[in-house]
Amino acid sequence: MITGKDNPRIKYIKKLLDKSSFRNSEKKFVAEGLRAVKECNRFGTINQLYISSGYEEKMSENSELSDVYNEIKADIKETVKDDIFNKISDTKSPQGILAIVYMPEVNPDAIYEKKNASVLVLDEVRDPGNIGTIIRTAQGMGFDAVIFSKGCADIYQPKIVRSTMGSLLKVPCIKLENDLKTELENIKKLGFTIYATALNNSVSITEIIFDEKAAIIIGNEANGISDEAFLMSDQNITIPMKNGLESYNASVAASILMYEAGKKQ
Amino acid sequence: MITGKDNPRIKYIKKLLDKSSFRNSEKKFVAEGLRAVKECNRFGTINQLYISSGYEEKMSENSELSDVYNEIKADIKETVKDDIFNKISDTKSPQGILAIVYMPEVNPDAIYEKKNASVLVLDEVRDPGNIGTIIRTAQGMGFDAVIFSKGCADIYQPKIVRSTMGSLLKVPCIKLENDLKTELENIKKLGFTIYATALNNSVSITEIIFDEKAAIIIGNEANGISDEAFLMSDQNITIPMKNGLESYNASVAASILMYEAGKKQ
Repeated sequence: MITGKDNPRIKYIKKLLDKSSFRNSEKKFVAEGLRAVKECNRFGTINQLYISSGYEEKMSENSELSDVYNEIKADIKETVKDDIFNKISDTKSPQGILAIVYMPEVNPDAIYEKKNASVLVLDEVRDPGNIGTIIRTAQGMGFDAVIFSKGCADIYQPKIVRSTMGSLLKVPCIKLENDLKTELENIKKLGFTIYATALNNSVSITEIIFDEKAAIIIGNEANGISDEAFLMSDQNITIPMKNGLESYNASVAASILMYEAGKKQ
Repeated sequence: MITGKDNPRIKYIKKLLDKSSFRNSEKKFVAEGLRAVKECNRFGTINQLYISSGYEEKMSENSELSDVYNEIKADIKETVKDDIFNKISDTKSPQGILAIVYMPEVNPDAIYEKKNASVLVLDEVRDPGNIGTIIRTAQGMGFDAVIFSKGCADIYQPKIVRSTMGSLLKVPCIKLENDLKTELENIKKLGFTIYATALNNSVSITEIIFDEKAAIIIGNEANGISDEAFLMSDQNITIPMKNGLESYNASVAASILMYEAGKKQ
C-alpha cells in the first residue's frame, strides 16, 4: 500500500492530472471514478489502476466493485491510503478509484479518406462542460471524428475525462498542431464540404441535406467562428431561433447539427 | 454609497442569493453581471440596481456602461464599496453590477388552454447547467412553457439566472406545487399528448409528428423519468444512439426534442 505523498507514483499521477504538456509527452491521462474507469477499460487500454484503502474495504462487501477491479488488466494495481488518495483526487467526494489510461492512437488520414464521413470541428471552444457534452453526443450520433483547434480546452483534463465517461476513447479526437485554416484546406481537397453556423448567406438547418463528406464547424462560446475558419465555409447554416434569443449554447448547436447530419447515414 | 456589510440592503441581497424560500416569499431574485442585468431589464422588471465603486469609476470612462445604468428604471439605485460588493457576489470575478428582479407572473391556465402549445416538462432535473441551457433553448425553439417538478433545482438560484441571461423571464417557467402526476393528468384532460424519452415501445424521434398540444418529459440525469410520470406517457420516443453510448446529456436530449417539436409550428 502507498502511504506517503512523496511516493513517485503519486507524484506521477499528480503531474498527469495537472499538466497537459506532461500528458501529451507521456501519451497517458487519468480517469477517476468507477464509471469513467469502467468505460475507459471498455473502450481503451488501462496502464495503471489505483484504489483507496476505503475502496478496498468496500470491495470485500460488494462483489460488483471487486469484479470490476479484478477484470481490469493493468501493468500496475495498487492501493493508496485514503488521505493520500483524497489529496490527489480532482473531485470533492472521491469515489476511491482512478486509472492511468493510454491515449488512443488516431489516424486522421484514414478518417479523411473514407467515402462517407462526418466530422465536427471545434474552433476555440473553451468550456470543459461543452466539450464533454459534445464528445458524448458525437459518439451517439455516429460521427467519425471531432477535430479540436489549438485554442480549444485540452480534452484530457480531468473534468472532461470524467464527463465524457469513455467517449473520448470511442470517438476519434484529432488535436490540431497546424492552424485550423490549413487543416480545413486539407480536408476540403479530400472532398469535404465545410459547413459553418453563421447568419449571413445562410440556409436553415431544416432545409439542408448534408453531403457524404461533411465537416461542421462550431465556434467559440463568446465570439463564434473565427474569420479564418469562416472564409473556408462552403455553406452557412442557421438554427431556427425565436423570441429574441441571440444564440444557442455551443453544445446545443453542435448537438442539433450532428443530429441532422446523422440522418444522412 | 453603502460601505458596511451590516447594511440592511446588503443583508437583503445576500438572503435572496442564498435562500430559495426567501426568494419565493419575496417574489424576487438577484441577477448579476452586465449581460444578465441587461437581459432582465429587457424582458422583465428591475426593482433595485447596485453597482460597485469600481464599476462607477469605469462608467465615467465608458459611455456604454453608463448608458445601460441610466436607462434602467429601478426603485433603488445605489453604489456599494468594492470590498462589500465582492463579498456578496456569487462569482469569482465580479463585474460590479447586480439587480434585484421581480419574478414574472405566469398564468399556466392561459398556456394550457391554447389551441397549439408545446411545453417541456422537467422531472427531477438537478444540474443547474442543464437547466440553464434548457431554458435558453426553450426560448429559441418557441416553447410555450417549461414545467419544473418539485425535485428540480430552483431556477432562480444565481448560477441558473446567470447562465440563462434573461430567458427565464421570456419563457414562462411553471414551478409545480402539486406532484408531477397530478399536473400531467390535468394537462392531458386539456388535450395535451404526453411524450417521454424511453426505450420500450418507443418510436424514433425522426418518425414522430408531434400533436398540436404536446408535452415532452425529460427525466433526471442519473435515473431518467420517474415511474409515476412514465405511466402518463402517450408516446415513448428514442433519439438515435450509436456506438454503444448509453444516454445523451439531459440538455442535449431536450434540445433535440424541442428542435423537432418546433418544426410543427
